[in-house]
Amino acid sequence: MTAPVPADVLSRLKAVLGADGWSQDPERLAPKLVEWRDRWVGATPFLALPRTTADVAAVVGICFEAGVAITPQGGNTGLVGGQIPQGEVLLSTERMRTIREVETFDDVLVAEAGVTLAAVHEAAAAVNRRFPLGLASEGSATVGGVVSTNAGGTQVLRYGMVRNLVLGLEAVLPNGEVWNGLKHLRKDNTGYDLKQLLIGAEGTLGVVTAAGLKLYPVMASRAVAMAGVESPEAAIRLLARAKDETGGAVEAFELMGRLGVEFALKNIAGTRDPLAEPHPWYVLAEFSSGEPGSAEAAMERFLASGLEAGLIRDAVVAQTDAQAKALWAIRENQSPAQKPEGATWKHDVSVPVSQVAAFLAEATAAMQAFAPGARVAAFGHMGDGNIHYDVLRPDGGSDAEHSAKRNDGSRIVHDIVAKLGGSISAEHGLGSMKTAEAERYKSPVEVQALRAIRLALDPKRIMNPRVLF
Amino acid sequence: MTAPVPADVLSRLKAVLGADGWSQDPERLAPKLVEWRDRWVGATPFLALPRTTADVAAVVGICFEAGVAITPQGGNTGLVGGQIPQGEVLLSTERMRTIREVETFDDVLVAEAGVTLAAVHEAAAAVNRRFPLGLASEGSATVGGVVSTNAGGTQVLRYGMVRNLVLGLEAVLPNGEVWNGLKHLRKDNTGYDLKQLLIGAEGTLGVVTAAGLKLYPVMASRAVAMAGVESPEAAIRLLARAKDETGGAVEAFELMGRLGVEFALKNIAGTRDPLAEPHPWYVLAEFSSGEPGSAEAAMERFLASGLEAGLIRDAVVAQTDAQAKALWAIRENQSPAQKPEGATWKHDVSVPVSQVAAFLAEATAAMQAFAPGARVAAFGHMGDGNIHYDVLRPDGGSDAEHSAKRNDGSRIVHDIVAKLGGSISAEHGLGSMKTAEAERYKSPVEVQALRAIRLALDPKRIMNPRVLF
Repeated sequence: MTAPVPADVLSRLKAVLGADGWSQDPERLAPKLVEWRDRWVGATPFLALPRTTADVAAVVGICFEAGVAITPQGGNTGLVGGQIPQGEVLLSTERMRTIREVETFDDVLVAEAGVTLAAVHEAAAAVNRRFPLGLASEGSATVGGVVSTNAGGTQVLRYGMVRNLVLGLEAVLPNGEVWNGLKHLRKDNTGYDLKQLLIGAEGTLGVVTAAGLKLYPVMASRAVAMAGVESPEAAIRLLARAKDETGGAVEAFELMGRLGVEFALKNIAGTRDPLAEPHPWYVLAEFSSGEPGSAEAAMERFLASGLEAGLIRDAVVAQTDAQAKALWAIRENQSPAQKPEGATWKHDVSVPVSQVAAFLAEATAAMQAFAPGARVAAFGHMGDGNIHYDVLRPDGGSDAEHSAKRNDGSRIVHDIVAKLGGSISAEHGLGSMKTAEAERYKSPVEVQALRAIRLALDPKRIMNPRVLF
Repeated sequence: MTAPVPADVLSRLKAVLGADGWSQDPERLAPKLVEWRDRWVGATPFLALPRTTADVAAVVGICFEAGVAITPQGGNTGLVGGQIPQGEVLLSTERMRTIREVETFDDVLVAEAGVTLAAVHEAAAAVNRRFPLGLASEGSATVGGVVSTNAGGTQVLRYGMVRNLVLGLEAVLPNGEVWNGLKHLRKDNTGYDLKQLLIGAEGTLGVVTAAGLKLYPVMASRAVAMAGVESPEAAIRLLARAKDETGGAVEAFELMGRLGVEFALKNIAGTRDPLAEPHPWYVLAEFSSGEPGSAEAAMERFLASGLEAGLIRDAVVAQTDAQAKALWAIRENQSPAQKPEGATWKHDVSVPVSQVAAFLAEATAAMQAFAPGARVAAFGHMGDGNIHYDVLRPDGGSDAEHSAKRNDGSRIVHDIVAKLGGSISAEHGLGSMKTAEAERYKSPVEVQALRAIRLALDPKRIMNPRVLF
């Protein structure tokens, strides 16, 4: 737990924020101190509720001077505890909800940190544009949060992580100074890209107060299909064909094992088995194009050639939006569908696409040896090599027993990931949960460089001190 | 000029590099000390010619210990003097020419720093893939150079700068340690992205020794057209339509003024006027698609609707590869076509796309007032807001007189760029040429942060000390 915050610092913070700009009311604070999976419960002496960038600068400036630590928080949807304070001042961006600008010739939308991703989607749609970042939590996740965690989601294959979707940033640096990098430029080679350093810094290099997000055209055609395949190897080969045959117009290429589909059939009301017969693995593919009819035509070609090559056992193409949604729901419900099945070890890992099958085979063999009877439900963004590798307790087994083995089990999974050149956090970040684990796998050269950069910008380590190296 | 390099350091460098790993022969050195436009002539006491990453680490380690400065150099195609030493040890990557790996499931090509961009294109084509970075200098420009300068080119609109095209990096940091970040991962959220910091750092944060480059599918259809338009405003509106109508399948969208076309007609043998009548401005557009015939169809739609809307005066679509090449040649010869016209002030600037017309109008009015009779040849990557804004001496005027006014004239252009939210170096970087000028326009907050980062990684400032802040 962080050291107590001096009373005079609290007084100064209250003075700069004004009556409605802070809270110490336990009821007001409570929902911000618990993470939605209840894995972390935090504590804070003070909730700062800045309305403007100047407010944020004042708060950070006071804390910097006094050496008081701050945890920034957006929509509180993070999965690795980075947003949950342990005694630090909690800075919430919830009142910074203005969309400052939408410029369709520049294709940019400038939103303050507290704007939700859903509000961004709505504002983009209103000008016939699209912001291609899709997250299950988009009703709560905020711009500041998705930027600070370099969020991923289902469209990374085509559009990249948030890192590729930001044109400009405004942030308050750890010393309380405001950096205005809200340019509308697609090209600017004038020194290190500070924006890229802040993206994914999980709040440790300052508070992102606003971001200029890249807008994209709305697509004229779209096709969604689910294919049953024999193995992850077949899925890897299908992915290469899909990219080649569409010229890179693959919006999503997701993989799920049969067990996950069965969990959805059993535990999520309204789920229907997508194909007549069960298959060991399923690929959910979405293509899109600016040319009317083109995505549908590409999907037909892709499925026909995949069937002919013996890579696809059976497939269904969504004929309506409702059918497309139903297919996507099976994929999106993979996590909720596991809940009634008991304790789980969850892993958000990535490996090179070429190694996905090797990873799944090796990890699953290792799990069967280490935790006999444990049930592996693997699914994820196959197109990015990002697998959510979940290991559930044996059917009817003990939750407590399974949870007790979590750390050792995860270590086995992570060691295999590292051996294959992968990452132990593909998209969720490190937060307070995975920082120590990540240090095991990073080279000392890299950790030392990252620490030096942090120290240079935050010499007192006041920004989210429990998080990252 | 940098301080002389001590004799014992030279001895140690010779010892680690071996007989063929260095040179002090003036004839061998000469071509590396002159930039191709002859704007900089450099000097060095020692040319290091490492063959391996370990060699580079040894050189940097010795120099770090002794506080001796190093200038790294790739293909010597930079336009801002960053690669020309002024007394520093010159480290050339010319012997590091191995393509280490091509992996088509991961869509990555790992090349050492000294591999030319042309060799990368060839190796990608050999596996039916494409690396979408096109530069006029690709026969000489190297992987280390394009990464270190975050190169741009004609396909940025669709694929982004080099920053978006790199999956992994290997580099020797300023302290001589090797950082191996050559992952094949598309998702890796485990701390600050050191790779992004090194990209575009112009050799100031270490020597890039190898890069994992992203490969893309080869396109099944491609369409190139040249359209005559009334004004840059019309071009801006056409760009928005092109992006919308193709779903973002615009590979390139270039703008040229009539004067530049006339220079090409006059000074480049074999150039033909692209359209029957002259037009004030020209748009060169290229669309591509994974769907056979789709790009051509999209181009037909785009031109027809642009003509109907009165935004296009006339247009020609290339019917053969040779015709496409001829249209592109007019654009690519804009710089060479100026050469016989005498002294020029060149500017590589960017503004928000929405401000391109305002920039051109305001800058040209200012130039007419400041240098009556001067001829403005503006062209560039309109899709990115990147304009190469060249101001030539009056027809028949004095080169010396025009060159004498360069700095004051450029200052006027840069001030207008800055006012419109632009950048004074869109794609060429700052080098030793523009660093001081850039500092005028950057906020002190940003410059201070960039300096702190540099100092953290290179406490003795040995890496390319004349370059950047």
